Amino acid sequence: MSVTAAEGFVAAGCHAGVKRRRYDMALVATVDAKPVTTAAVFTQNKFCAPPVQLDRRTLEENGGRAAAIIVNSGNANAGTGEAGLRDAQAMCRAAADAVGCSAEDVLVCSTGIIGTPLPIDKILAATPKLAKKLSVDGAHDAAKGILTTDKAAKEAVIEGSTFILGGMAKGCGMIAPNMATMLAFLTTDADVERDELQRILKQAVDRTFNTLNVDGATSTNDTVFLLASGRKGRPDMAEFADAVHKLCEDLTLQMAYDAEGMTKLVRLRVTGASSDGEARTAAKSIAENNLIKCSWHGGDPYWGRLLGAAGSAGVAFETEPTQVSYGGILVAAGGVGVPHDEAAVAAHMKRKEVDILVDLGLGAGEAQVLGIDLGPGYIKENSKTS
Amino acid sequence: MSVTAAEGFVAAGCHAGVKRRRYDMALVATVDAKPVTTAAVFTQNKFCAPPVQLDRRTLEENGGRAAAIIVNSGNANAGTGEAGLRDAQAMCRAAADAVGCSAEDVLVCSTGIIGTPLPIDKILAATPKLAKKLSVDGAHDAAKGILTTDKAAKEAVIEGSTFILGGMAKGCGMIAPNMATMLAFLTTDADVERDELQRILKQAVDRTFNTLNVDGATSTNDTVFLLASGRKGRPDMAEFADAVHKLCEDLTLQMAYDAEGMTKLVRLRVTGASSDGEARTAAKSIAENNLIKCSWHGGDPYWGRLLGAAGSAGVAFETEPTQVSYGGILVAAGGVGVPHDEAAVAAHMKRKEVDILVDLGLGAGEAQVLGIDLGPGYIKENSKTS
Repeated sequence: MSVTAAEGFVAAGCHAGVKRRRYDMALVATVDAKPVTTAAVFTQNKFCAPPVQLDRRTLEENGGRAAAIIVNSGNANAGTGEAGLRDAQAMCRAAADAVGCSAEDVLVCSTGIIGTPLPIDKILAATPKLAKKLSVDGAHDAAKGILTTDKAAKEAVIEGSTFILGGMAKGCGMIAPNMATMLAFLTTDADVERDELQRILKQAVDRTFNTLNVDGATSTNDTVFLLASGRKGRPDMAEFADAVHKLCEDLTLQMAYDAEGMTKLVRLRVTGASSDGEARTAAKSIAENNLIKCSWHGGDPYWGRLLGAAGSAGVAFETEPTQVSYGGILVAAGGVGVPHDEAAVAAHMKRKEVDILVDLGLGAGEAQVLGIDLGPGYIKENSKTS
Repeated sequence: MSVTAAEGFVAAGCHAGVKRRRYDMALVATVDAKPVTTAAVFTQNKFCAPPVQLDRRTLEENGGRAAAIIVNSGNANAGTGEAGLRDAQAMCRAAADAVGCSAEDVLVCSTGIIGTPLPIDKILAATPKLAKKLSVDGAHDAAKGILTTDKAAKEAVIEGSTFILGGMAKGCGMIAPNMATMLAFLTTDADVERDELQRILKQAVDRTFNTLNVDGATSTNDTVFLLASGRKGRPDMAEFADAVHKLCEDLTLQMAYDAEGMTKLVRLRVTGASSDGEARTAAKSIAENNLIKCSWHGGDPYWGRLLGAAGSAGVAFETEPTQVSYGGILVAAGGVGVPHDEAAVAAHMKRKEVDILVDLGLGAGEAQVLGIDLGPGYIKENSKTS
């Protein structure tokens, strides 16, 4: 049920013909076609796609609400200029007509290849049929309709004491902090005022989706929406914020495990930086370093490369106070290897989830990123457009 | 003859046992063991190796001169702490004793794996034998002695109207602007005063070695030395500076073509940025983007990814004025694909050297980087230490 688990939402997915065979459209709507409070986080990429441009404007003009989200996968409607903007608007109008709401209350997302015009006729033709399928049971179809090279649908639900929170996501490549080709649509029946909803969503996104770094690439289309129907009244805010965090974390891990060519998930923690920001910079520099990603693929605890990446990250760094641990086992201190249980480290590196700690020993700044190894699968996936 | 082509220099290479079979040591010296004017550029990595720390101190204390350079490959003497510093000093003393100069006039470099103690006994035992082999004909052996995973020795010579300039280099992975695992040793018989020599070398390094971006990684050990024996008198400075640039450019291209797993060299030019610095930032962001590197490997002219990388590089960017060309053929303008000769672009992308121009259309800032594709060869090379 995921995106329809909370009271007040219906969803559907279908095949419109953007992709050859698989589902390529999704629609999420409020059950009565009335707009509800909506928070949003978008890609930071300045070369952002027309749907992102349109949604930003829509939410600014309508004060942060939506009655429906229409999505296509297979084509990102990015690098498509004015024609792309008109196509995005046409998608909103078609969804509004089919659902029975105003086009100003419809949000639109596209994901897939960049620089190719959207097959808008196919999308518009499929939209009324898609709307007819809207139901509480349509969540899984919708979750399938937003996928690109993902191998599996990504869905999660959290039951609070007074509310339900559910959602779906897609994303497996071009993922880096600051939102990459990543879409997530969350719904709740809690009643939360817009600014608070936005603050809670932004904080959860920063601590979950934005810590995942598959390849350092920031997409043109990334979007997270959280729609709150309000049907279950005002929640305990601490509980609600925690639930949003947990839901985003669950979806983030599903994306990490579906990353293109991934064989290992690395929870990389940088501590002792002179600020949290410097810890994030160092962690990002390590997680995006191809030499390091390759050694993760090979299960090689090559701590010297970690310090090499931290030392060239442009943050405060001194060799003497550094410490590096794999799976809680200290392997280097002061920039020099220390005697340790090599068999235990080797066993830890063979695991699917690896824990690495780089302590810079300078201050109280810390950060965590979820890194992915770099193996042949990633290259195979990305060396050709189709 | 490369590093001994200029009058006043001798060189030698040998196998000391750091590596299993291949040459792993090199020595370059002035023919009379007297120190000569020396310029140097080092890695910017704060986690720099003991030999780099020692050389910086040596050149500061002796005012910028050297009579010999002793080098080992196979082990970077990095992440080795105080013991590594003592080993580096021992290498300098051994070379000084064998050559007949002061240890304060010996520079030392190491390249290879990080975090493992140097097999110093083997190195010290081999040094006297290495010094006995010093000769003008030893340049090629020396060029072989500094290699790691390089497939070929890298040597070049330029004959000026009054001087000779020659050199050798190594480097094929962990290469990014700001000097990566890259060593280059240049010699000349021109007579150039220290500050001028340093300025000329720094400028040439910035415009050549530092534009090569194999994998965004900045090494712990990178070093470029230029020794000037002065035997042929004062050169025309413009001609000399040009020769240093050309020599560095030649060695840079040799490194690019030997990059781990490389199948394509991309001359990526970013123009129209609001400053040269922003152009460099955008070019670096593009050249390090794995999605883009993979599409280069597949010969796919995926211009949308280029703009996506530029748009998230943190530089001034607007979609409207952008233009992207492959091999001089305009494929996108205003963030939208334009009709073009697709067969000609496809043919260009099949070449070993590809030219890409991203014009941001905002200002006069420009930069060029040499990018390398990302293919399975790189991963194979880097997923295991040995």
